[in-house]
Amino acid sequence: MRPRVEHGSLDEGVPRALPEELVTVLASRAGVRIERIVSRGHVTPPGEWYDQAEDEFVLLVQGAARLEFEDIDLELRAGDWVDLPAHVRHRVAWTAPGEDTVWLVVFRPASMG
Amino acid sequence: MRPRVEHGSLDEGVPRALPEELVTVLASRAGVRIERIVSRGHVTPPGEWYDQAEDEFVLLVQGAARLEFEDIDLELRAGDWVDLPAHVRHRVAWTAPGEDTVWLVVFRPASMG
Repeated sequence: MRPRVEHGSLDEGVPRALPEELVTVLASRAGVRIERIVSRGHVTPPGEWYDQAEDEFVLLVQGAARLEFEDIDLELRAGDWVDLPAHVRHRVAWTAPGEDTVWLVVFRPASMG
Repeated sequence: MRPRVEHGSLDEGVPRALPEELVTVLASRAGVRIERIVSRGHVTPPGEWYDQAEDEFVLLVQGAARLEFEDIDLELRAGDWVDLPAHVRHRVAWTAPGEDTVWLVVFRPASMG
């Protein structure tokens, strides 16, 4: 059987109301998961941190955000990317209010401790 | 040692003259390679096809392009993504002339075939 070519647009399927961040898996195979995340002013709850078992690459496709690490903050705008090794504690401190911030995120197996 | 958080922008390091498509590896770990590709009217040479051993996910971040498959063509504009399983023959039939078409590409081990 011919393998299927999946395709779509990052603009698809974003509801008018977005009470929580929207996570959509676009592709998931061979231990690699590619997601679209749409934030509309959403942030990681105060005092909470992500501490993930997988390596995570993020591209900010649209909008603006601020990522907070234990030592520095990173201001992100469209076209900015960050490669986060597993277990680097981070949080989303800010996303632009009143507009959609769109991320493309690639989770893959951790390559180190 | 603390793992390093790499970051950058897709706008960085694009030369004024681009005689060939520009391929820049942003991250490469655990069998997964994430690249930025910049095309400025470049296409796959006529009659040539990509037939790759890896699964390839592409996001068209900026610009416009047409991908050709053996049975169909796909017109792509900013925000469109395509997930290409290994060995699905394809070629870039057209990219917008006079502007930069920017792709984010994720190569990962083939999951079938």
